[in-house]
Amino acid sequence: MTYAPKERSERTVRELASRARNASRALVKVSNENRNEILMSVAKAIEDSTQKILEANGRDCQLSKPTLEAGKMSSAMFARLKVSERGIREMAGRVRGVARLADPLGRRLSVTELDEGLVLYKESCPLGVIGIVFESRPDVVPQVGALALKSGNAVLLKAGAEASRTNEALVEIWHDCLARFPAVPQDSLCLLHTRSDVMELLTLDRDVDLVIPRGSRDLVEFVARNSRIPVLEHGEGICHVYIDRAADFEKALKITFDSKVQYPAACNAAETLLVHQDIAREFLPRIATKLIAAGVEMRGCSQTVRLLGEVSISHASERDWAMEYSDLILSVKIVNDLPEAITHIHRYGSGHTETIVTEDFDAARRFMDEVDAAGVYHKASTRFADGFRYGLGAELGISTGKLHARGPVGLDGLTTYKYKLFGDGHIVADYCSAARHFTHRAVE
Amino acid sequence: MTYAPKERSERTVRELASRARNASRALVKVSNENRNEILMSVAKAIEDSTQKILEANGRDCQLSKPTLEAGKMSSAMFARLKVSERGIREMAGRVRGVARLADPLGRRLSVTELDEGLVLYKESCPLGVIGIVFESRPDVVPQVGALALKSGNAVLLKAGAEASRTNEALVEIWHDCLARFPAVPQDSLCLLHTRSDVMELLTLDRDVDLVIPRGSRDLVEFVARNSRIPVLEHGEGICHVYIDRAADFEKALKITFDSKVQYPAACNAAETLLVHQDIAREFLPRIATKLIAAGVEMRGCSQTVRLLGEVSISHASERDWAMEYSDLILSVKIVNDLPEAITHIHRYGSGHTETIVTEDFDAARRFMDEVDAAGVYHKASTRFADGFRYGLGAELGISTGKLHARGPVGLDGLTTYKYKLFGDGHIVADYCSAARHFTHRAVE
Repeated sequence: MTYAPKERSERTVRELASRARNASRALVKVSNENRNEILMSVAKAIEDSTQKILEANGRDCQLSKPTLEAGKMSSAMFARLKVSERGIREMAGRVRGVARLADPLGRRLSVTELDEGLVLYKESCPLGVIGIVFESRPDVVPQVGALALKSGNAVLLKAGAEASRTNEALVEIWHDCLARFPAVPQDSLCLLHTRSDVMELLTLDRDVDLVIPRGSRDLVEFVARNSRIPVLEHGEGICHVYIDRAADFEKALKITFDSKVQYPAACNAAETLLVHQDIAREFLPRIATKLIAAGVEMRGCSQTVRLLGEVSISHASERDWAMEYSDLILSVKIVNDLPEAITHIHRYGSGHTETIVTEDFDAARRFMDEVDAAGVYHKASTRFADGFRYGLGAELGISTGKLHARGPVGLDGLTTYKYKLFGDGHIVADYCSAARHFTHRAVE
Repeated sequence: MTYAPKERSERTVRELASRARNASRALVKVSNENRNEILMSVAKAIEDSTQKILEANGRDCQLSKPTLEAGKMSSAMFARLKVSERGIREMAGRVRGVARLADPLGRRLSVTELDEGLVLYKESCPLGVIGIVFESRPDVVPQVGALALKSGNAVLLKAGAEASRTNEALVEIWHDCLARFPAVPQDSLCLLHTRSDVMELLTLDRDVDLVIPRGSRDLVEFVARNSRIPVLEHGEGICHVYIDRAADFEKALKITFDSKVQYPAACNAAETLLVHQDIAREFLPRIATKLIAAGVEMRGCSQTVRLLGEVSISHASERDWAMEYSDLILSVKIVNDLPEAITHIHRYGSGHTETIVTEDFDAARRFMDEVDAAGVYHKASTRFADGFRYGLGAELGISTGKLHARGPVGLDGLTTYKYKLFGDGHIVADYCSAARHFTHRAVE
């Protein structure tokens, strides 16, 4: 009952998308209980197929070794490609975790009585068909499949070519499970194979509702520039920590250190420290000592360099202020006041997450109202910007766009809404002739 | 204090957008009371400037007369261009109406305690800078300006060239008002002039957050295809009325007639009538009599033509099912059952508004759950799909897209949200080391 890879690759992406669209029509009829039952059975099938997955992954790793040895693949990338028994248990666990989330569908966003007997419901529903493009991480296949199924969407997946055997094994396991649940067509999860498949996908705006690229900045930009379908961009994170004149130094030291050092490769790590001039002389040497001890390289504005000395810190160039280092590097700038901090953030920031440390609540409120970013924090580390930490249960990415979804995106990001209007023969002519009048009463 | 048109046209669109971005930074600081005060003063200024507006409009009409007489401008378009004293009072009234709407900003969409002393607020806020492109209707200038200001956004407006003098007079009145409110920069409302201005606008994804094209299908498609900025598409309306086997005929007759005849030029008017085969023989002659009496031209499937006779109805071609007539024309098809009706709607519909007339509640529920459209109705005319009728207070358009906004879009469509996190020195390392734990408690 599963598609052989050959059979699949013979279908054009257009055909696959059209079949996914049909599958999405069937998915809206499947209850939350049934969706969860399938996810639980997929989780078990993944565990039961440990040997099969490890074998497929072994072949992928084998074939990538020459690339690794030739220095064309980083060891970090190779490590992400490699799947362990524990990793397989974690995949299954994550699928079960998605099954346990609240049903994102059929939520009533508002209920309005338009007139007697004429009631309007705004209800969440699936988007339809999602395209997801990501780079080599086989554990994303079951995770994305689970999020899509839970939210009633069909999904077309393009994964990294290095992991193709592992990905195919995982999709085969998925399809074998679906074969036992005829309500959900196998076409609801489909693997794409090549970059040209992705190019074709991006033109199919009639059959694909949303594209999510996950991976390098190059990948995200490539997709955004070439897509005729809306794109959920997991954007850059150029996050700032601003230490105000009225900061408590203990909190400021902790928050700066955590924002930069706790996991510097994350998009929510801080890249720039802004310090109010009134406290710079006292604060900067203290934070510098802590950061240098943790191996952080600092690049400062000329005032900062004068204050700390060129042994501790190098000169930042204009480019530094706009850099996502994703590493133990921090740019540091002394600002005259809060407005200058905000202007700097708007000029160089990416609208991801910005934090102010101050005991002056008016300054905090001003920062949080005026800074245009997905997250604006008061006395908290930028590293909190994360779907799990926000309590969303799952994370599809962190959007730096402002439309549809902003900041950490959970299952809701895969839903839209529809208006359901229940009447009993109501017509508009009666309201135009003033025979009837709208009540527009919000129903709780 | 106002910009002379000449001075304005010397600025590039890039400069105008950058100034609009700066203006949007100032707008977030303006309270709802102040925004309303400005709108009330603009409304008065419009009334006080009736003579000035009529003169400018007179020149526009004068210059368009040769085009009208040469048949290159429809008389409907000329009528829309022409502004009357009453029209000016209505413009002012609409600006006051927007001032009276609830503040769309700072609404708390959710509040979550992440941990003791660490609280996350999801709050509505302005998008920033909106680009609006519309065809010749001068009354849209104050309306769009009011909606943008009310929602804290700066706006770049491209209006129809035929109305350029009227539009400029209206913008000048607006700017004169703003001169008395220094908190709101005049750059927050700016007029663009040419089609090449629009082309430049569509590339400015760093300074413009959303583009809304209002006008012909050609205009909407042109903008959607050429924009690197998200577009709120006011899409086509190919709406269906489906008369189920279990329909009450009186309701079915009323709803069909209202959906087609009440205002056929609207996008929410019905274009196709689908009738269950079991009741076609009885229902179709009755609705045909009513529609023909109202001057409706009918085009049917072969079964319908056989039933009604070629005198009453012509043969529909494949193209008819996908046509937005925007006129007193209706295509009619007999379907075997509900699934065939749904399949037809998915194949030819534009995802705008679809209605079922039936007394069988299971059939209604199935239709409303399965049909993928912004509006799914039970026993109500498709003509209810409208921001005012939905109680949104204002309407920016009706979106047939699924991202950000779907269906009739009110002021909310011009807002996004940001997460505000209030802590007191909270860092992520404490949660990774399990020194602290998330509570994730929804706060009411």
